[in-house]
Amino acid sequence: MWISEYGFYDYCIVMNHQTNLKGPDSLSGYPCLPPTTLTDDNFVFNLQPANTSQFPTIKAGISTAFVNEFPALNGLDISVAHVAFEKDGFFPMHSHPDATELIILVEGEITAGFVTGMNSIAYLKTLKPGDLMVIPPGHLHFVANSGNEKATGFATFSSSNPTIHSFNNIFANNIPSDILAQATFLDVAQVKNLKARFGGSN
Amino acid sequence: MWISEYGFYDYCIVMNHQTNLKGPDSLSGYPCLPPTTLTDDNFVFNLQPANTSQFPTIKAGISTAFVNEFPALNGLDISVAHVAFEKDGFFPMHSHPDATELIILVEGEITAGFVTGMNSIAYLKTLKPGDLMVIPPGHLHFVANSGNEKATGFATFSSSNPTIHSFNNIFANNIPSDILAQATFLDVAQVKNLKARFGGSN
Amino acid sequence: MWISEYGFYDYCIVMNHQTNLKGPDSLSGYPCLPPTTLTDDNFVFNLQPANTSQFPTIKAGISTAFVNEFPALNGLDISVAHVAFEKDGFFPMHSHPDATELIILVEGEITAGFVTGMNSIAYLKTLKPGDLMVIPPGHLHFVANSGNEKATGFATFSSSNPTIHSFNNIFANNIPSDILAQATFLDVAQVKNLKARFGGSN
Amino acid sequence: MWISEYGFYDYCIVMNHQTNLKGPDSLSGYPCLPPTTLTDDNFVFNLQPANTSQFPTIKAGISTAFVNEFPALNGLDISVAHVAFEKDGFFPMHSHPDATELIILVEGEITAGFVTGMNSIAYLKTLKPGDLMVIPPGHLHFVANSGNEKATGFATFSSSNPTIHSFNNIFANNIPSDILAQATFLDVAQVKNLKARFGGSN
Amino acid sequence: MWISEYGFYDYCIVMNHQTNLKGPDSLSGYPCLPPTTLTDDNFVFNLQPANTSQFPTIKAGISTAFVNEFPALNGLDISVAHVAFEKDGFFPMHSHPDATELIILVEGEITAGFVTGMNSIAYLKTLKPGDLMVIPPGHLHFVANSGNEKATGFATFSSSNPTIHSFNNIFANNIPSDILAQATFLDVAQVKNLKARFGGSN
Amino acid sequence: MWISEYGFYDYCIVMNHQTNLKGPDSLSGYPCLPPTTLTDDNFVFNLQPANTSQFPTIKAGISTAFVNEFPALNGLDISVAHVAFEKDGFFPMHSHPDATELIILVEGEITAGFVTGMNSIAYLKTLKPGDLMVIPPGHLHFVANSGNEKATGFATFSSSNPTIHSFNNIFANNIPSDILAQATFLDVAQVKNLKARFGGSN
Repeated sequence: MWISEYGFYDYCIVMNHQTNLKGPDSLSGYPCLPPTTLTDDNFVFNLQPANTSQFPTIKAGISTAFVNEFPALNGLDISVAHVAFEKDGFFPMHSHPDATELIILVEGEITAGFVTGMNSIAYLKTLKPGDLMVIPPGHLHFVANSGNEKATGFATFSSSNPTIHSFNNIFANNIPSDILAQATFLDVAQVKNLKARFGGSN
Repeated sequence: MWISEYGFYDYCIVMNHQTNLKGPDSLSGYPCLPPTTLTDDNFVFNLQPANTSQFPTIKAGISTAFVNEFPALNGLDISVAHVAFEKDGFFPMHSHPDATELIILVEGEITAGFVTGMNSIAYLKTLKPGDLMVIPPGHLHFVANSGNEKATGFATFSSSNPTIHSFNNIFANNIPSDILAQATFLDVAQVKNLKARFGGSN
Repeated sequence: MWISEYGFYDYCIVMNHQTNLKGPDSLSGYPCLPPTTLTDDNFVFNLQPANTSQFPTIKAGISTAFVNEFPALNGLDISVAHVAFEKDGFFPMHSHPDATELIILVEGEITAGFVTGMNSIAYLKTLKPGDLMVIPPGHLHFVANSGNEKATGFATFSSSNPTIHSFNNIFANNIPSDILAQATFLDVAQVKNLKARFGGSN
Repeated sequence: MWISEYGFYDYCIVMNHQTNLKGPDSLSGYPCLPPTTLTDDNFVFNLQPANTSQFPTIKAGISTAFVNEFPALNGLDISVAHVAFEKDGFFPMHSHPDATELIILVEGEITAGFVTGMNSIAYLKTLKPGDLMVIPPGHLHFVANSGNEKATGFATFSSSNPTIHSFNNIFANNIPSDILAQATFLDVAQVKNLKARFGGSN
Repeated sequence: MWISEYGFYDYCIVMNHQTNLKGPDSLSGYPCLPPTTLTDDNFVFNLQPANTSQFPTIKAGISTAFVNEFPALNGLDISVAHVAFEKDGFFPMHSHPDATELIILVEGEITAGFVTGMNSIAYLKTLKPGDLMVIPPGHLHFVANSGNEKATGFATFSSSNPTIHSFNNIFANNIPSDILAQATFLDVAQVKNLKARFGGSN
Repeated sequence: MWISEYGFYDYCIVMNHQTNLKGPDSLSGYPCLPPTTLTDDNFVFNLQPANTSQFPTIKAGISTAFVNEFPALNGLDISVAHVAFEKDGFFPMHSHPDATELIILVEGEITAGFVTGMNSIAYLKTLKPGDLMVIPPGHLHFVANSGNEKATGFATFSSSNPTIHSFNNIFANNIPSDILAQATFLDVAQVKNLKARFGGSN
């Protein structure tokens, strides 16, 4: 709940901060739309289907309704994405430190898995339409289309903007390759390949 | 994170508490399954499609994956339900004090609305497939099939077990009808009708 | 605790935001008074006795010390109201999704009750001076003067500004009467009566 | 919200743990009463008026409705006490690290004050009936009857069991007097006097 | 996590608020540095060794890396100080209502103790290098050099800016001495001495 | 704060759960030691220096005072480890999803770095004795001895038991190598090498 000049409200729909920036940044982010200007449309968002041509190298796509796209989610601890995989499509190893992910498979077949920090146990499962799989916060996980058809579904999150920390991030930067090789137990050549692939340097 | 005799874990999958009850109730609920006994299946749940014959008087149905059905959600602040409405089906006015609801319409057409406590403003919208609508916590809301076909979708929540406080609850109990009429501004006859409908007495 | 240009403080007394508005709205609300300008008076508030002529149709009144009236409560998770009921006075069915209410009866006799979401159980009790009753967050409840004299007391809350979602809100808006009748199981005529009473339309 | 074998509930009324102890202690405390056994009486408590003969040396008394006395407050973040002061009565310097205190003066006149950690500023005020004063969490404060009559009121807290850390605690233990004198800048003789007064040793 | 015009970030390094003040105060404090301007240096801080000549009367010193000195700690719930004591040096009785303190002794010998609110139990221990002692939030505690050499160590806290409420605060203000004597059970003469020592008046 | 049969306490020191297990596991973990049995020693822990022969392949060691070793930290949101690196020693890439890490370098020279999820920016810094570096929660980071001497320091955490999710975990399990190669963009041969190194299969 927050205090507006209009009274007290349970929601704060952030202004389109690219175009309407009015105040300074802070831990609580951008100004809210004045409650008296809100209309029905502010609470509704059209989630476009994910397009597998979005990321050709992984044959997958994601269409997000996070707070950046759907400002009404601000402070409400939930968000959703539509995801789609062509045959052989996948999302690489990544984690969401601050959000649970709950996968809803709608069509096709996927195999999803996560790895525990304690004892490195892998929980891995092939899902059919109607199946749900839950990924606890902070756990490294991946999803791959394991069927012969396109697969689509929803990924829901316990945060209005789940941050993503990906395997790719390790290489897409300027940490010297020899240091990175040491920190990952990979050969320097392998590190340099991944740096080249993901836009890293050094 | 919690402490087990097996170490420290980020999740606590509750035992099937109807059949495996081992310890006393407390604010933190039932015992967790020992982590070493967990398998891939514990993190997966098959969400059956909602069946509109479940509640004939409202021509609607709901199939839930809350923590009671999917114990892996325990402590992870998320859950989902599949919902279905026949033509003219609806869910009556209710609220979830401790959870945001995010509606994902998959097929058909629904009209959903919520009412604010401040100034009694109603936000009301007709949704098409792919549309999302967010209901802030604690707000009275309803959903009605406003199309000519069956409508289905998902309701996701920012809690592993969103409590439901419904308009029906007001009448489905033993509060004397005259007191209830006063507290709701309804005629006693109307109160008695609703008490009869929802199983209340007095 | 927050950071001011004057150092770190445990309280943030919001400026009188009607008259002293200096910055934009955000989830954290209005600017704080500069700590160096605070005086003893900022931490004290005179709570006027509730006046039962405030709401003649319900023969009751409420005098609040919520954060809007007593800005020192900002961020401190508590507030209080004085309440008074003439003979036959009452507060209609409502809920506070984000606050516990603890009632302290000082004089007279009241009957208070709340209804659970789970199984629609009603807990109903007649209170004498010195009696306390606790209403868990989010539960629909009401209070009625059940004695022959004026009744007064305090309602304390676990929030500096408990939001109020009332039975009245359902009708005091522009949702079409037929939709509302369906969502509440009431007759359209009854809905129209309540709309007229509480200022709704359609 | 918690999980019981009876379903999910928003409150957990702890068993009378002196007489009904059934399970082991843990961070979440004692077992809850089975929800199906709850009656109206569980949510109501008679708060006896404070008796100023309770603590003769400070001419004051306190009657508490904390979770220990009123188990329904468990987990609900609120509690209340009735307080009474004879002429010259007072409560000595103390703090509640985990709760805001909101004082409601009902009769008589009191002077209350608290001291900030930052810059040692004292906020001190004489209150009349109907006055409220708020003490932010963790701040050392005291209350004294500054009138010529008995004073009574309520102290409400943003915790179901506000812990009390008092000036007295410093001396009512076995820390050697010379160490304590150093830690408090008091003379050893003064420390020994206070130790004698409050039951300390060494 | 917060929203910047640059996207979403997990940290908000506050601007040097003495020199770069750009926006109004609020509960969430000062503006964040724009993420795109951050460099490696923003996440690093050189903690100077504590200097025992800092507070000659207590023969001790403290060098802090709280959020005021190390702005990257903002919102990250941790901070650290280096502390040093000459022979006979000490820190007087104080508490941190909103932070746990974990002491790490590096060299020398200290005796540390805290007092419980419940039953006034004192836990007192002499520490050697490598010893840790934990002080629960809100508990009055002190530390004294109990050896014949200089003692140094670290004090770590579960807050980026632990507030300090000290025995000294009681006397370093303008509360009249007679009121303060009553509230502390000290003689008025003793109160006046402490007031003189710590800069109080009245 | 929790409820014991002995009253209300601010700390719950868990029993040595290997030897004294008395009750079932739950989200709140093991039973607490009865407060009346606590002694000074329960709040103190001797943190042994880290031994670089502990992990020969990385020439580094860690000695932890997490809640498992120092049960008094239970619920107090802080912990500390002593770390030591021989020349060329290092800790590989890992993250703590639920804790900030604050590094205190005491002797030698280390280079530490972390990688952001947003834009893959690396913040990398060489530290000298007295330098602190903060790693925000959930960020992949590493530490390497970049000097010619042994390096030692403390790692403090904003959790009593920071979970560790390491690069190693990805390979130390039974996920088939071809799936893992796809999910990490590594060659299958490289994956098999890492699996062999860290004890994975398939």
